[in-house]
Amino acid sequence: MPENNNKYKKIGVLTSGGDSPGMNAALRAVVRTCNYYDINCYGIRMGYDGLINDHIVELGPRSVKNLINKGGTELKSARSEEFRTVEGRKKAAETIKKHGIEALVVIGGDGSFTGAMKLYEEQGVPFIGIPGTIDNDIFGTDYTVGYDTALNTVAEAIDKIRDTATSHNRVFFIEVMGRDAGFIALNTGIATGALDILIPEEKDSIEDLFQSFDNAKKKGKTSSIIVVAEGDKLGGVYDLAKFTKMKYPEFDVRVTVLGHIQRGGSPTVADRVLASRLGVAAVEGLIDGRCCVMAGMQSSKIVFTPIEEAIKKHNEIDKELIKVSNILSMQ
Amino acid sequence: MPENNNKYKKIGVLTSGGDSPGMNAALRAVVRTCNYYDINCYGIRMGYDGLINDHIVELGPRSVKNLINKGGTELKSARSEEFRTVEGRKKAAETIKKHGIEALVVIGGDGSFTGAMKLYEEQGVPFIGIPGTIDNDIFGTDYTVGYDTALNTVAEAIDKIRDTATSHNRVFFIEVMGRDAGFIALNTGIATGALDILIPEEKDSIEDLFQSFDNAKKKGKTSSIIVVAEGDKLGGVYDLAKFTKMKYPEFDVRVTVLGHIQRGGSPTVADRVLASRLGVAAVEGLIDGRCCVMAGMQSSKIVFTPIEEAIKKHNEIDKELIKVSNILSMQ
Amino acid sequence: MPENNNKYKKIGVLTSGGDSPGMNAALRAVVRTCNYYDINCYGIRMGYDGLINDHIVELGPRSVKNLINKGGTELKSARSEEFRTVEGRKKAAETIKKHGIEALVVIGGDGSFTGAMKLYEEQGVPFIGIPGTIDNDIFGTDYTVGYDTALNTVAEAIDKIRDTATSHNRVFFIEVMGRDAGFIALNTGIATGALDILIPEEKDSIEDLFQSFDNAKKKGKTSSIIVVAEGDKLGGVYDLAKFTKMKYPEFDVRVTVLGHIQRGGSPTVADRVLASRLGVAAVEGLIDGRCCVMAGMQSSKIVFTPIEEAIKKHNEIDKELIKVSNILSMQ
Amino acid sequence: MPENNNKYKKIGVLTSGGDSPGMNAALRAVVRTCNYYDINCYGIRMGYDGLINDHIVELGPRSVKNLINKGGTELKSARSEEFRTVEGRKKAAETIKKHGIEALVVIGGDGSFTGAMKLYEEQGVPFIGIPGTIDNDIFGTDYTVGYDTALNTVAEAIDKIRDTATSHNRVFFIEVMGRDAGFIALNTGIATGALDILIPEEKDSIEDLFQSFDNAKKKGKTSSIIVVAEGDKLGGVYDLAKFTKMKYPEFDVRVTVLGHIQRGGSPTVADRVLASRLGVAAVEGLIDGRCCVMAGMQSSKIVFTPIEEAIKKHNEIDKELIKVSNILSMQ
Repeated sequence: MPENNNKYKKIGVLTSGGDSPGMNAALRAVVRTCNYYDINCYGIRMGYDGLINDHIVELGPRSVKNLINKGGTELKSARSEEFRTVEGRKKAAETIKKHGIEALVVIGGDGSFTGAMKLYEEQGVPFIGIPGTIDNDIFGTDYTVGYDTALNTVAEAIDKIRDTATSHNRVFFIEVMGRDAGFIALNTGIATGALDILIPEEKDSIEDLFQSFDNAKKKGKTSSIIVVAEGDKLGGVYDLAKFTKMKYPEFDVRVTVLGHIQRGGSPTVADRVLASRLGVAAVEGLIDGRCCVMAGMQSSKIVFTPIEEAIKKHNEIDKELIKVSNILSMQ
Repeated sequence: MPENNNKYKKIGVLTSGGDSPGMNAALRAVVRTCNYYDINCYGIRMGYDGLINDHIVELGPRSVKNLINKGGTELKSARSEEFRTVEGRKKAAETIKKHGIEALVVIGGDGSFTGAMKLYEEQGVPFIGIPGTIDNDIFGTDYTVGYDTALNTVAEAIDKIRDTATSHNRVFFIEVMGRDAGFIALNTGIATGALDILIPEEKDSIEDLFQSFDNAKKKGKTSSIIVVAEGDKLGGVYDLAKFTKMKYPEFDVRVTVLGHIQRGGSPTVADRVLASRLGVAAVEGLIDGRCCVMAGMQSSKIVFTPIEEAIKKHNEIDKELIKVSNILSMQ
Repeated sequence: MPENNNKYKKIGVLTSGGDSPGMNAALRAVVRTCNYYDINCYGIRMGYDGLINDHIVELGPRSVKNLINKGGTELKSARSEEFRTVEGRKKAAETIKKHGIEALVVIGGDGSFTGAMKLYEEQGVPFIGIPGTIDNDIFGTDYTVGYDTALNTVAEAIDKIRDTATSHNRVFFIEVMGRDAGFIALNTGIATGALDILIPEEKDSIEDLFQSFDNAKKKGKTSSIIVVAEGDKLGGVYDLAKFTKMKYPEFDVRVTVLGHIQRGGSPTVADRVLASRLGVAAVEGLIDGRCCVMAGMQSSKIVFTPIEEAIKKHNEIDKELIKVSNILSMQ
Repeated sequence: MPENNNKYKKIGVLTSGGDSPGMNAALRAVVRTCNYYDINCYGIRMGYDGLINDHIVELGPRSVKNLINKGGTELKSARSEEFRTVEGRKKAAETIKKHGIEALVVIGGDGSFTGAMKLYEEQGVPFIGIPGTIDNDIFGTDYTVGYDTALNTVAEAIDKIRDTATSHNRVFFIEVMGRDAGFIALNTGIATGALDILIPEEKDSIEDLFQSFDNAKKKGKTSSIIVVAEGDKLGGVYDLAKFTKMKYPEFDVRVTVLGHIQRGGSPTVADRVLASRLGVAAVEGLIDGRCCVMAGMQSSKIVFTPIEEAIKKHNEIDKELIKVSNILSMQ
């Protein structure tokens, strides 16, 4: 029997916030690692609402079979208004107590971690977080669970759009997810040979975009893809398309908003392995007495980051990638 | 040497209108079948504009290698305003004469066939059409080239959206292509277990839709997909979502417009084989002295349909499919 | 309430023989159509062994949710030795009687239908069959459930192999499934531009194959794919590779046996819709008093074929397809 | 104009050894980065044989369009016997001199780098290497170009096999690539929930494998996947299957060798971005006066490693991953 320093007997696990591919793989890892260390594992359904309303079920190791390659989250997820109140968190703590759950593993993003932190501060429920979001914007891990899958979903969609863009000599503005972070836009833009990439972290001007079009025309490019993150400061894809059409009436300009396909799908190997590793690490971290940290991966090693840091700081866009994009797309 | 009854020496081929997956496979088949019968094949770029502006290149059998699995159209496509005029078609005929091209294979939809018919009537250029469009709305063939690929692209996207719909108990309105025809919506709706499917051919009422939601609630369904064809008469996806939210404020309602991803992608086997067969049939049809017909496939056999019929008549939605959808989705 | 002429109250459903993608979609359709007609539906696990050993569970309409796009068969499948005996079938009939099951829907191939027929003749249990096999070799339906998915799985695999074949100027012999039927080999061979296709239905000679290689060399082809059905009479892929290497020592010859990946995967839209239609038709057929027939699809219409015909006769390879392959590949 | 410290005017690029997905993305990046720095870029076809036989063509920036998402290598690749001789390398140097090429970018693995090093030592041709191989076994980079794509190709194949394994309660031995390295086997084994994973780096015993089977039986597992790297020391998949069947006659044991599908396919986003970054870095490295190094990525940063180190040292399997696999699979 492997050692359980903290003598935990019961651990709960939930997914919260927007779902991301790989959450099920993380859940499976949490459940099976609990079992390995002889801990009973409880699945909490519908995020924090499930704590408040007592939607809790014990999960044996075989209950998570065939989940590793499944998109979405079997536990379901939600954003809970009630849990944002002290009263709500008190109710949640009562449910936790009732079941004898001693600690939580919280799979989600910034908002989910903030909630867990408050539950700890007010009600003393220890927890470890696992970063589950497609946006890759959480500090303390090189990659978040779901990000790699989203990248490939987006690139496959843009590859398809490129077929028709090239066939018709069209300019396409494609909106991808990323309200505050341009990781998806930047990496998929490079991966699909986008002419230009607009992200929240960069101050782009419409003149820069028009400069790109002028260069492209000079080089003989007859079709172009512009990848735009949701949170881009320059304007939404529809406005960008309108301005472009005004400046270049001869262009055949189109818009596609990729939308929710980006959140689903069977996770990639990278996401399945990452989720599995973090799931094991989270349970082992609790056993080792850690609390209020996020399990992440940096340079292929497990690293625990204090949850406040994970929430407050942000991963920065690598300037080298922007340079790579500029060198490769402008020709 | 196989027989060439019509003694053609030079045949031209073009793609016109919206592109569809499998057009390249059809092009490859036309080029290689010409070569097989010792006919020189000329590729016309950018649809009818390429005829007007003399963008024509001879295509040897090796020039189309590695094309069979490629989306889009290597010849490029366009809608030509000039070709809609008698003057434009006269210019086109001059280019055709200049190159010594004796007949055309036209890969496209209704509009493309109408243009070819006029060119024949006014200028005497014989042709055979190949139905290339994702909409499957052309009479005289069970399937159009690109339709099967579009079905699978749409279903894969909806499968992904379902992951997140289920995880969050959401209602999704998903718009798919089909301005005049509901084939894509109906088949992908059945294939993805949509709660309801709205198509141009059916008179739906908002009450029917609400009835579906009421039934679903009664059965305990917590998330739903509604597939809506572009051309649905009831209203666009955004309005439908708004009305639904008004009626059911407790629903978490979302909208996705799949857009141009539906036109691209590597063709499925069914589309590659269909395109190959029709490409062979079109060239052999010309050799056999046929003109002004469309090569199609009915019950797995090649059938030639007079082009006026192909344009005027329309494939009808199979009522049995609607019944199947009703039986399977309402539970 | 829709009419139930035959007054059935309880119907059983099983999958038997090799599994195929879409079996779950057929199961879902059977279960939900039963529910629609107010019939209780019983799932029999592990094929006929489940009848013998009483592995039977009632299936409500919500028990088959999220199954339509899932590969394999949730009911599991098996080949049952015991059911081949009169004694075994007697035990099966006792289980059926015990549960009050009045009729069966059998999803499988030739062997599964033979078993059902014997059960009917000896024990009077009525049934309708649904053709579920990737091989497409069952008479009475244009397509079997799983065939279209297998075609696309194979073509995607060959597309990948072609990348490396082209990069290295290699000759690849690729074995695909099809012990008695060349449908998969012929259609995927055409779809991937194979130089030659070897199928059980055709008498190929090694000289024909070498002739293909000689032609290819003359045309300047530097890499080639040969698709070989398992049941090809000329010899297995390893022998073919050996003989080819002896004749053309300068060739870099490789072999790939695609194997069991061909049976799995999420079904295509065509398979999901086909399976859904046949599942509805099978239950409605029983209700209408039909027995001992197979529900199939011909020219897009539901057709019932006497089970003996379905077993004895075979779908024939379309000679036109072989001609298409010859014209397109030899250049 | 960006600075070119080394005043290079002409750089050559080749792909050598086994091909891998992303080689074309690396080629595109090399060509366009050369153009960006006003250097003429020459593509050498068929690896080192192309140097010996003067198969060299100048590549402008538009010549590599639409290559970023294409599998295989457009330059083609080969293993050159002649280049292993001093005489061969002398001929190669003469070709290089004839074209005025001043430095090389070599995309390939260990063997390719060894060849480049000898060419440098004997003939003074400077070079930088880019690690292109699916095996991920090259020291100096966290990931090699093609590895991530191969992981996903393998996992998709195993997911399909799992469908049929589960449906039939079967045990599958699946051989994946990796003659000397278990990276593919270990990561895909974890990602697909394999019961056991056999890799060259670990000393496995048949008793350990049987122990896994015994545990699985105890836990109620009815089907199992065993992932085996080509280079596993315990024996090939066929022998393992035979021994397993002898020990457990009740098992339905099957074998699949995934083979060359693992080398092909459109590269993932991770591979496209990695290849793009290394392509830019290799050219900039040459410009900065570096030689005889490999451009790699460590912790998301570009790192140059002396080529001897890259060849001699090897990436080590992460023991933590083996532990993760053991915890998660044994339940």
